[in-house]
Amino acid sequence: MSVLPVYIPPDFSRPDLASAPAVRVEPAPADGVLPRGFHATSNLPEYLHLGGGDWLLARESRMDAVMVLRGREVEVIEPRQVKLGDPVVIGRSDDGEEGIYVHSSGFPCPTAAAGKFVFRSRGTRETPFSRSYDELYAVLRHDREQGYIVWVLGPAIAFDKDSRDAMQFVVEHGYCHALLAGNALATHDLEAARFRTGLGQDIYTQALQPHGHYNHLDIINEVRLRGSIPRAIRELGLSDGIIPACERQGVPYVLAGSIRDDGPLPGVISDACRAQDAMRVHARRATTVIALATQLHTIAFGNMTPGYHVTPEGAVRPVFFYVVDMTEFSTDKLANRGSVQAVAILTNAQDFMVNLWHNLK
Amino acid sequence: MSVLPVYIPPDFSRPDLASAPAVRVEPAPADGVLPRGFHATSNLPEYLHLGGGDWLLARESRMDAVMVLRGREVEVIEPRQVKLGDPVVIGRSDDGEEGIYVHSSGFPCPTAAAGKFVFRSRGTRETPFSRSYDELYAVLRHDREQGYIVWVLGPAIAFDKDSRDAMQFVVEHGYCHALLAGNALATHDLEAARFRTGLGQDIYTQALQPHGHYNHLDIINEVRLRGSIPRAIRELGLSDGIIPACERQGVPYVLAGSIRDDGPLPGVISDACRAQDAMRVHARRATTVIALATQLHTIAFGNMTPGYHVTPEGAVRPVFFYVVDMTEFSTDKLANRGSVQAVAILTNAQDFMVNLWHNLK
Amino acid sequence: MSVLPVYIPPDFSRPDLASAPAVRVEPAPADGVLPRGFHATSNLPEYLHLGGGDWLLARESRMDAVMVLRGREVEVIEPRQVKLGDPVVIGRSDDGEEGIYVHSSGFPCPTAAAGKFVFRSRGTRETPFSRSYDELYAVLRHDREQGYIVWVLGPAIAFDKDSRDAMQFVVEHGYCHALLAGNALATHDLEAARFRTGLGQDIYTQALQPHGHYNHLDIINEVRLRGSIPRAIRELGLSDGIIPACERQGVPYVLAGSIRDDGPLPGVISDACRAQDAMRVHARRATTVIALATQLHTIAFGNMTPGYHVTPEGAVRPVFFYVVDMTEFSTDKLANRGSVQAVAILTNAQDFMVNLWHNLK
Amino acid sequence: MSVLPVYIPPDFSRPDLASAPAVRVEPAPADGVLPRGFHATSNLPEYLHLGGGDWLLARESRMDAVMVLRGREVEVIEPRQVKLGDPVVIGRSDDGEEGIYVHSSGFPCPTAAAGKFVFRSRGTRETPFSRSYDELYAVLRHDREQGYIVWVLGPAIAFDKDSRDAMQFVVEHGYCHALLAGNALATHDLEAARFRTGLGQDIYTQALQPHGHYNHLDIINEVRLRGSIPRAIRELGLSDGIIPACERQGVPYVLAGSIRDDGPLPGVISDACRAQDAMRVHARRATTVIALATQLHTIAFGNMTPGYHVTPEGAVRPVFFYVVDMTEFSTDKLANRGSVQAVAILTNAQDFMVNLWHNLK
Repeated sequence: MSVLPVYIPPDFSRPDLASAPAVRVEPAPADGVLPRGFHATSNLPEYLHLGGGDWLLARESRMDAVMVLRGREVEVIEPRQVKLGDPVVIGRSDDGEEGIYVHSSGFPCPTAAAGKFVFRSRGTRETPFSRSYDELYAVLRHDREQGYIVWVLGPAIAFDKDSRDAMQFVVEHGYCHALLAGNALATHDLEAARFRTGLGQDIYTQALQPHGHYNHLDIINEVRLRGSIPRAIRELGLSDGIIPACERQGVPYVLAGSIRDDGPLPGVISDACRAQDAMRVHARRATTVIALATQLHTIAFGNMTPGYHVTPEGAVRPVFFYVVDMTEFSTDKLANRGSVQAVAILTNAQDFMVNLWHNLK
Repeated sequence: MSVLPVYIPPDFSRPDLASAPAVRVEPAPADGVLPRGFHATSNLPEYLHLGGGDWLLARESRMDAVMVLRGREVEVIEPRQVKLGDPVVIGRSDDGEEGIYVHSSGFPCPTAAAGKFVFRSRGTRETPFSRSYDELYAVLRHDREQGYIVWVLGPAIAFDKDSRDAMQFVVEHGYCHALLAGNALATHDLEAARFRTGLGQDIYTQALQPHGHYNHLDIINEVRLRGSIPRAIRELGLSDGIIPACERQGVPYVLAGSIRDDGPLPGVISDACRAQDAMRVHARRATTVIALATQLHTIAFGNMTPGYHVTPEGAVRPVFFYVVDMTEFSTDKLANRGSVQAVAILTNAQDFMVNLWHNLK
Repeated sequence: MSVLPVYIPPDFSRPDLASAPAVRVEPAPADGVLPRGFHATSNLPEYLHLGGGDWLLARESRMDAVMVLRGREVEVIEPRQVKLGDPVVIGRSDDGEEGIYVHSSGFPCPTAAAGKFVFRSRGTRETPFSRSYDELYAVLRHDREQGYIVWVLGPAIAFDKDSRDAMQFVVEHGYCHALLAGNALATHDLEAARFRTGLGQDIYTQALQPHGHYNHLDIINEVRLRGSIPRAIRELGLSDGIIPACERQGVPYVLAGSIRDDGPLPGVISDACRAQDAMRVHARRATTVIALATQLHTIAFGNMTPGYHVTPEGAVRPVFFYVVDMTEFSTDKLANRGSVQAVAILTNAQDFMVNLWHNLK
Repeated sequence: MSVLPVYIPPDFSRPDLASAPAVRVEPAPADGVLPRGFHATSNLPEYLHLGGGDWLLARESRMDAVMVLRGREVEVIEPRQVKLGDPVVIGRSDDGEEGIYVHSSGFPCPTAAAGKFVFRSRGTRETPFSRSYDELYAVLRHDREQGYIVWVLGPAIAFDKDSRDAMQFVVEHGYCHALLAGNALATHDLEAARFRTGLGQDIYTQALQPHGHYNHLDIINEVRLRGSIPRAIRELGLSDGIIPACERQGVPYVLAGSIRDDGPLPGVISDACRAQDAMRVHARRATTVIALATQLHTIAFGNMTPGYHVTPEGAVRPVFFYVVDMTEFSTDKLANRGSVQAVAILTNAQDFMVNLWHNLK
């Protein structure tokens, strides 16, 4: 069985598409400001008609971005990146009427049961996940060599010994090409490496250490004293855990700041726009995303990850986006922001990691 | 390491207990009616002072029941079981003032951190569960031979191929001495054995089968036609799954009816009081309970399970009660009904089962 | 503005329906057993073709029941009610091919936005509920005189002073024609009337009363001593609350037993099948249902409530079914059992009641 | 009844405190780096012993900050604000042993029931909230004139017509002295003012507008074109809603950026540290905080809000902190980060606002 479904490109010989006009652009009226009627991208494959039946597929797209078209080059960028005079694609219809075609049927879709009355049309914690897991393992094995796997982590992963060990395994065995997280994940991972606690609670025994609420402040202070995470890891002799594994393996990680942060650690990008830019670098390359136990980072990265990826050879493949969370609300919220392709797995992130570990070993 | 903590009995030579009066009884004024001032049991070990320093520990206790004391025999029964004239224990204090001593410190309790200010004093989905799992595996291995393990199951277990296989393994390998569930668990397990679906959804592929919402009605009808679950299993040749495994292994199961039931299947006890009586038989023997993905059955069985068990040799040991659920609310609710000893594991029941399977294999 | 949408009956002159065969019946092979291929009802209007273009609409239908057809009389009953030889309707298609037509477009449906890409297609706690509330108030005012309003209550309503007062108001002012609940709702309502607590916690101050966990056992015992709820209300002089209001107003209430019950109170129907039968009496008459803070009773009553009601004059109107719950999971679960018409309002039942009270006053 | 409890200061004549040493300081080794053994503040009142029985209460404190002590002046600042050489208070004990006394009993605490066995010791959605509401209304009326009320809002408030109207009322009637939120709240509030939608969904009818997912991008673009929110409000003639009301009333608002943001709007502080600084200005003044439907902003502001406030006259009063959220998890998480004083109200933010409006009108 092949892991990747075959992409079915649009049939541009269809009469309505064959007669479509060429797409229009207008210059941006100022830096970071769009011309009226701008086209906003979705996470689906979108084609621009350059005229004469020449349709151009946008690469490295994302949701709620705009297209700057120069000749045969289209770039998908955030509105704030637009510069005065940039030729921005105009048009809000998606069926070619304005030279823009949004292709929503490129990959086969699981079909629903026939009939006016069905049970279980909604995914919940009671949905059977066995196959989702099996597919995920197959995807990870495939993309380890032939893709780009991005992990988006909330801090809970670092609070439990087994799930932290599991994530370390994932990094050490090539299943993680980039890690996105916040100050808390890094802080608690390093806290665990130094004190074996997360926010003062032993990551194995659950015991609350005396004065344990100092541990995360102490590790932050130690790292700030040394000026950088890699230097602190070296000088403090921290060896186990997620961030040390990333450093050893050369896996890039982006730590995006938030107003909840203590510290922050050196290396955390406290400016949200700059953090988005750093994350987007990985969204452009991602072929599989696993987002665990963080609503903030999951929605942020979900917004910037397209549903498809164009390989260097020009083939179109899906980007798999797995969301692991405890509540239907979190996954509904992601869907309500447009990321309907995301596969939700409703469970505790700890168990998810431990299961994955067992199956990849 | 020993799996079972040592029980520390009360010190009845303590002055306040040494001077305690003998316990008092009063006759029940009618069948199922209690005398004023009756004593209601907790799930802790409770001792009755028979006079002269002779303290009697109640066996097979439960929450919100009453004690009928005849000579040196005390029986803990539900109020509705009381008969006119039964000598019911009277008294509401728990420190011996009325001859009743509730012993809340018989087993060592995990100690909290010192200090006026701590983080992470509440258990949530972010609590590290690695050790809870390791302890659970040790307990199951111990109680397989030397205890009585009761499983309380919601239907979700039967909706997923892997978790259903895992539960079948548990039954087949001696880790389940009794199974408590409802009509839905049995129905969907047999539906899966016959049609490979749960409420019409394939338990592996998630595909909704055409007319799949008939499957559970069809299996119920088939079993009703044959008159009993064992006969239906035989005649329909159903082999995989939880209920067939119980039948093969001779593991008793109680199916308690509820107003949500279709059918019901033959063998389901539709009267709630009779169902409670059938469940209580297993509560009296339980040494470990694992309750999964059902609020109704978990609270019902939690109410009737004591926190301790007296072995035939007279030793007192804890009864371990694990609750696996997705929400803090469910486990808080259990605690709010008095079952504070329950260990909550916040996760999806599917993953819980698959993890367990991996570790017991 | 009219509260009730106009029903659009099927067009039986459509060629496929005009050529439909007459419906078939087969005799039940035994009491409580169905003939193979039986037709199971949905909660949508269903028509049976009696031949010659004569289509008969089933009244008082429900989900997962069967149809017994005698001449021009069709009765929708639970499978367990079927008697040996009853003529049961056969057929599983819903478009007339077997003489059965399930009409899913009788009432106008809110239309979705056009386009391949939309936000907010799923209902969550973030869905705006202002209009749902306004519609609900209009429906309640209408159905107070011209309908049959059924309330399905979990115990939480009785735990809070304001929400309990609000529900008492609803009963006293004609907005409740029948009340369905369990032993716990009645117990805690009477506990509050006697002790001003719910499970021992003051319903206003939240203070935990000393020995408060005896309160619910004491009130149950008092009622059992007196033999019935009405007699206990009279003799104990209980005046405020939900159940006393029902007694004063002559509003029927059904208390369905469950395995979680203490007691139970006299009047609680402990047999699940008999309780279903008592509930179904009200489901047959219901025009509006409000189900609050109880998954068990909500799903049970949702299963037995049709999406439409045929008035004595033969008009077809919708049955409004509101579910008030805190989690998307509960309302998804209801939808996954077929009750897709239910309107979910995601909030705390206490606030829901207090809001309603303010707006109906 | 007085709204504010009386503060009971510590008894410094107690032998252990009378013999306490003077507090110690050490210079910070670098900008943003703390000396080893630094003291981290809690949200409780903390006193420093300056020697000779002279104890100094820190004002405007917060959790996880440090104290810089110069003579009789103590300043509580974030570790990153510390400059090389700043005299930082040292010590980790809280009972005076190192000249630091953390006063955890300054305000009376609701007492628990006696007894070894109680029900309902945990707050959940089933906790009765009537009194919490009544107290909140009294507090708001008091602090409107004599306090400083800070609202912390998630975007959900702007998605519903009634709750948005209610919040506008709160701002217009003096019940809000500062508003803290993110880019999304402001965007969707202005989207509603312009298009009557939230993320494209009508805030009253729930209808999804055609191309509605452009609405938030269009309003962001309009505001960016005009350069500021106040200018856009003026030029676009936006009048209803929360942000326009703040502008009219001169209520300061802080919009903190996050990686989830589109745009962002002009005025949003995209740097997390600068945003924290802007929020802290209001935390220093806050006497009552209401945090609604946002985990990120609630935890961030909870971290920086002390449990007490010292009035200009030197009196110590509590800071009331209400958290309104749908899940026990969110409020447990806040408690697990140290904000145990927070009062949780488990409900939908929409209903909360509408209830409040009714009661303040």
